[in-house]
Amino acid sequence: MSGNTIGKLFSVTSFGESHGPAIGCIVDGCPPGLELAAGDLQHDLDRRKPGTSRHTTQRREADEVEILSGVFEGKTTGTPIGLIIRNTDQRSKDYSGIMDRFRPGHADYTYNQKYGFRDYRGGGRSSARETAMRVAAGGIAKKYLRERYGIRIRGYLAQLGPIKAEKLDWDQVEKNPFFCPDADKVAELESYMDALRKEGNSIGARINVAASGMPAGLGEPIFDRLDAELAHALMSIHAVKGVELGAGFHCVEQKGTEHRDEMTPDGFLTNQAGGVLGGISSGQDLLASIALKPTSSLRLPGKTVNRDGDPVEVVTEGRHDPCVGIRATPIAEAMVAIVVMDHVLRHRGQNMDVDSGLTDLGSNC
Amino acid sequence: MSGNTIGKLFSVTSFGESHGPAIGCIVDGCPPGLELAAGDLQHDLDRRKPGTSRHTTQRREADEVEILSGVFEGKTTGTPIGLIIRNTDQRSKDYSGIMDRFRPGHADYTYNQKYGFRDYRGGGRSSARETAMRVAAGGIAKKYLRERYGIRIRGYLAQLGPIKAEKLDWDQVEKNPFFCPDADKVAELESYMDALRKEGNSIGARINVAASGMPAGLGEPIFDRLDAELAHALMSIHAVKGVELGAGFHCVEQKGTEHRDEMTPDGFLTNQAGGVLGGISSGQDLLASIALKPTSSLRLPGKTVNRDGDPVEVVTEGRHDPCVGIRATPIAEAMVAIVVMDHVLRHRGQNMDVDSGLTDLGSNC
Amino acid sequence: MSGNTIGKLFSVTSFGESHGPAIGCIVDGCPPGLELAAGDLQHDLDRRKPGTSRHTTQRREADEVEILSGVFEGKTTGTPIGLIIRNTDQRSKDYSGIMDRFRPGHADYTYNQKYGFRDYRGGGRSSARETAMRVAAGGIAKKYLRERYGIRIRGYLAQLGPIKAEKLDWDQVEKNPFFCPDADKVAELESYMDALRKEGNSIGARINVAASGMPAGLGEPIFDRLDAELAHALMSIHAVKGVELGAGFHCVEQKGTEHRDEMTPDGFLTNQAGGVLGGISSGQDLLASIALKPTSSLRLPGKTVNRDGDPVEVVTEGRHDPCVGIRATPIAEAMVAIVVMDHVLRHRGQNMDVDSGLTDLGSNC
Amino acid sequence: MSGNTIGKLFSVTSFGESHGPAIGCIVDGCPPGLELAAGDLQHDLDRRKPGTSRHTTQRREADEVEILSGVFEGKTTGTPIGLIIRNTDQRSKDYSGIMDRFRPGHADYTYNQKYGFRDYRGGGRSSARETAMRVAAGGIAKKYLRERYGIRIRGYLAQLGPIKAEKLDWDQVEKNPFFCPDADKVAELESYMDALRKEGNSIGARINVAASGMPAGLGEPIFDRLDAELAHALMSIHAVKGVELGAGFHCVEQKGTEHRDEMTPDGFLTNQAGGVLGGISSGQDLLASIALKPTSSLRLPGKTVNRDGDPVEVVTEGRHDPCVGIRATPIAEAMVAIVVMDHVLRHRGQNMDVDSGLTDLGSNC
Repeated sequence: MSGNTIGKLFSVTSFGESHGPAIGCIVDGCPPGLELAAGDLQHDLDRRKPGTSRHTTQRREADEVEILSGVFEGKTTGTPIGLIIRNTDQRSKDYSGIMDRFRPGHADYTYNQKYGFRDYRGGGRSSARETAMRVAAGGIAKKYLRERYGIRIRGYLAQLGPIKAEKLDWDQVEKNPFFCPDADKVAELESYMDALRKEGNSIGARINVAASGMPAGLGEPIFDRLDAELAHALMSIHAVKGVELGAGFHCVEQKGTEHRDEMTPDGFLTNQAGGVLGGISSGQDLLASIALKPTSSLRLPGKTVNRDGDPVEVVTEGRHDPCVGIRATPIAEAMVAIVVMDHVLRHRGQNMDVDSGLTDLGSNC
Repeated sequence: MSGNTIGKLFSVTSFGESHGPAIGCIVDGCPPGLELAAGDLQHDLDRRKPGTSRHTTQRREADEVEILSGVFEGKTTGTPIGLIIRNTDQRSKDYSGIMDRFRPGHADYTYNQKYGFRDYRGGGRSSARETAMRVAAGGIAKKYLRERYGIRIRGYLAQLGPIKAEKLDWDQVEKNPFFCPDADKVAELESYMDALRKEGNSIGARINVAASGMPAGLGEPIFDRLDAELAHALMSIHAVKGVELGAGFHCVEQKGTEHRDEMTPDGFLTNQAGGVLGGISSGQDLLASIALKPTSSLRLPGKTVNRDGDPVEVVTEGRHDPCVGIRATPIAEAMVAIVVMDHVLRHRGQNMDVDSGLTDLGSNC
Repeated sequence: MSGNTIGKLFSVTSFGESHGPAIGCIVDGCPPGLELAAGDLQHDLDRRKPGTSRHTTQRREADEVEILSGVFEGKTTGTPIGLIIRNTDQRSKDYSGIMDRFRPGHADYTYNQKYGFRDYRGGGRSSARETAMRVAAGGIAKKYLRERYGIRIRGYLAQLGPIKAEKLDWDQVEKNPFFCPDADKVAELESYMDALRKEGNSIGARINVAASGMPAGLGEPIFDRLDAELAHALMSIHAVKGVELGAGFHCVEQKGTEHRDEMTPDGFLTNQAGGVLGGISSGQDLLASIALKPTSSLRLPGKTVNRDGDPVEVVTEGRHDPCVGIRATPIAEAMVAIVVMDHVLRHRGQNMDVDSGLTDLGSNC
Repeated sequence: MSGNTIGKLFSVTSFGESHGPAIGCIVDGCPPGLELAAGDLQHDLDRRKPGTSRHTTQRREADEVEILSGVFEGKTTGTPIGLIIRNTDQRSKDYSGIMDRFRPGHADYTYNQKYGFRDYRGGGRSSARETAMRVAAGGIAKKYLRERYGIRIRGYLAQLGPIKAEKLDWDQVEKNPFFCPDADKVAELESYMDALRKEGNSIGARINVAASGMPAGLGEPIFDRLDAELAHALMSIHAVKGVELGAGFHCVEQKGTEHRDEMTPDGFLTNQAGGVLGGISSGQDLLASIALKPTSSLRLPGKTVNRDGDPVEVVTEGRHDPCVGIRATPIAEAMVAIVVMDHVLRHRGQNMDVDSGLTDLGSNC
């Protein structure tokens, strides 16, 4: 495949640009019999969509997804599910200032070098607008995993610039526009973002995702390990510069006795591994964390070159997120869901007869 | 594919267990005409092989690779290259103590739960012994990239437990058993490792890899981004728990004006991006960093369960690396080489006629 | 992938049912810079579409394709091309008679056994309606191959029931509703089809496809041979039961001296091979032939069972093609184009530096 | 993948040339727990190996396969199975006559044009020697399918030149060197082949393969149909120029009432479909047929060109099969087994929860 497909048995292929007529995707491999309607996907789309608070881009998109195939009488048929969202609020004229110059830190330059030219309107294919389809596709995976296996995939903002969530209260996550699980930090986030917007700058963020209710056994070593495919999927999200599982980079300074998760008949005692050992799920919660860089589309001028190679300054007008991390929580959840779903199907194919002789220990931790 | 293949046009499929008769791989898609002999691969294999200093496992393997196909009259033919290394120094009896109990932090448990049973000798397929084939395969990619494009891929130990390299002197990297680029830290590393070995414990590490001479344009958005596939490849290495590109997790606290790499006609001014923008190489050096956890096979007893689910203690005899990160440098280089090579071929296929009209700026930084 | 994608570097993923809201596909991997508009694809869509003569189904579909992405300022950008065709003329009530019984010779039964239930309206996903998207996707490949390489892909009806074309006059192919290259047979075809329609029966056909202007060197042995992937692509067309290259089944009775195509400095003397030797194109014309079975949806009653397993009779009302082979010519061309296109890109990726030292002989024959 | 891998969940990747040190393959995705030893694969390897009668090449190869991984204590572990066969009887000097000229009808020319040069010894990678590994890999699939599902895959010689088998007596197939199911034709085959060998010519053949005990539901429409992937796999065998399922090319002259297989509660009444409807297995016997061209390596001189493009004559000394079809029966069985195996695993992954509510009708016919 040429780069726009992810997954082997449960696969998602996407298309669409920021300012084209529509974005869409094909979800292939969803098992038959899952109850599914567009409404089931809308909740996560609404969590991701722009313009829901003053802290994200003011582009207004309803992001209403249409299911074009693969569902009959309210149930998936096992055939590919075509999804589409029409683009409605495009202001292409905003982009005339950057059509022949490259924003530093943006894909403008690399698209030009790879393809010879680029759709400069809203970043074209490099726009995070494309992630709406990931959220829709991931919504199907989430629903199947929850209903069939009790697997639950949830994310939250762990850090935004200098502000770290210090409590993990899942009930708080959906109660503020930041997906912050620590209610005590919300006011601080509000004022930080207001100041940043005024300044015309942007900021990075860290998002954590957890999957609970995981069965043991998912993941195909050597190359298609569960953690390796999660890293692939999460790093494929716009602006992500780092991915961790479990202890992540902390393990550099850990000793073996600290890092290894001891086991008892009642379950694992800790979860440094983040739910994956040897590339295979252990049944513990899957714990992933990602770093998102600050947006490169800024009102503050920066040095760059134009298509002729001359030195110029660039200022981005248009409408942009000062922190792309804010809207990334549902996207990261979706990518985890897609990978886990694919591995559920792959694992069943090869291992359906296996009896390990041992009860799954993972759910105890 | 079922998990043991990586790459689309340049692909590597591997097989083999720690204590089976041999390990091997098939490298498919190497262009014809590359001069290649087993000796070309031996240097990197020797860098990775066990027993070269007192700080790694004392297993003795010559790790001599045999080329079984794909080379004729000293040149690659374009057909698959079969590679094999016979295992010679196996002491399976060392493993009788763990055949029916699971080392905490090890793949013992997850292999059991996935497959119903496992080859417990030396970790079987989950052993890092398999990475010898990655090094051999990566050696082919490295040679092609260097000779055809001048791309050079090199790694080093950036941190081991609390000890950080503070200088990057490439000339030092091969002069000590740690791949440490800071000569001033070698004595400290020696004594730290000696103490650790005495204690019976293990430690984590961080490895950095850089690719210089990169052309702009490699990588296929959306899902097959260069950074996403690097994350996949690097996270697929045993014990890796985190992957970063460029600024990595530092970007969480960066502002847009700090992170964006400004451009001039003479090149980029900084390299926070690590050489990838929008999933496509910018021509700047590719900079990746990985975290490796401490080995879970320890002489210090740990709590676990046996195959009957009873609580037991486990102690690992056998021969193990107290820091798997030490030997990981050539492995990480190999994985980067495989991914870059695959993307060179893929890019040429789709974009060979492209003229971007702009000179590559990347090589200036 | 889960079955709805074909191709590795130039890939097509399709979705859609006969009576759903729309059918569509994503074409991934088209090189940037190709001039493309919906109108470029319409000619082949019109050649395939239903209702253009009394000899095909009377369903009326405009089959107007919309390009949703991947084209900017009239040129492909190198990003995925989303294509969609809305379904308009659906008469789902026609299918109530077969909703709980299985047409013999149809996919009704196998879809039920595979998925547990099925979208019975117009055959759902098993309907040849899906092939409209193949024609659209193939149109992109055809245009690129023709403009960039001078490769031309054309098909014709070689036989319909007992009536064989005895002349190959390419100028005649588009002048009759059968794609018959032998003008002397058209009247016979007309009356045969009129009688068949009156009878309520259906008939098989043979379609030939030729690609001229082929370069030598396309195809990846061992498994991804050009002929093997052509066989895959052509057998994936609804109703196809056989595929031949060159001499095809005639070779069973040929001696080596008859079959081998001798070569001279002016080219090959014959083309028994059909343009492929060892899985790689020889530069001669690619010659493929397929057999299409008679439609199984008949007004003549047949024995079958219903969903309860009881014996019943089935009669298909609805609107069906009495010879699916008639509309199959553009579909077969499209599939050949998709495979050749994919192999052009794959070949370039791996072999762009190759100089064989010998001029291509193929074009002389 | 670059051409030497087939299958998605059960995949086979092969390497090796006719006159290199060894041929081999990696079988990835075999479920754990299958009892397996090299001896299990030897029977089919012996059926394929050269030199077993005077009617095949007199090259002597023991074709003893070694299992290098993936089996522990006599059972598959779920990890990749590495297989290798050392080449022993190579006479490279026989090939000096063709090193700089191209045998007409052979891959010599196309390999030269694709790769720039070629391993001319025994045809290098284009030699049918490579098919030994397919037989070994297929043997694993056959064993799993037979033991786990009762699926049995068997082939026979249906025609050799003008001589057709008129009876299908499975008990006869293994009792003569031709795999001919009609004992009355064996003497005729013997004398025909003796005359052909004396003449220095070669002849084509037709091989049929049947799979019995098939479950309904295997195959993934649209592109990964069971019949399409069978066509791919069978056309990938050296010398194959045509593939048919069920009625095959006979369907061109069939009416719908003849071709459709009517159904009763006791099963299908006929099997024109060859066991596949809509790309999905019906549970009836799978019936495939292939045409193999006559060998192009002949002692009779033929016109060709050399690497300089000059006209020359070519005569092939060396040792060759006068009818490659004779040894093709186990190869064709192996390819069918690999495809069916892959689809069993894929089907289980996506559809394991499906209850169609209807007993499988296929086994009754």
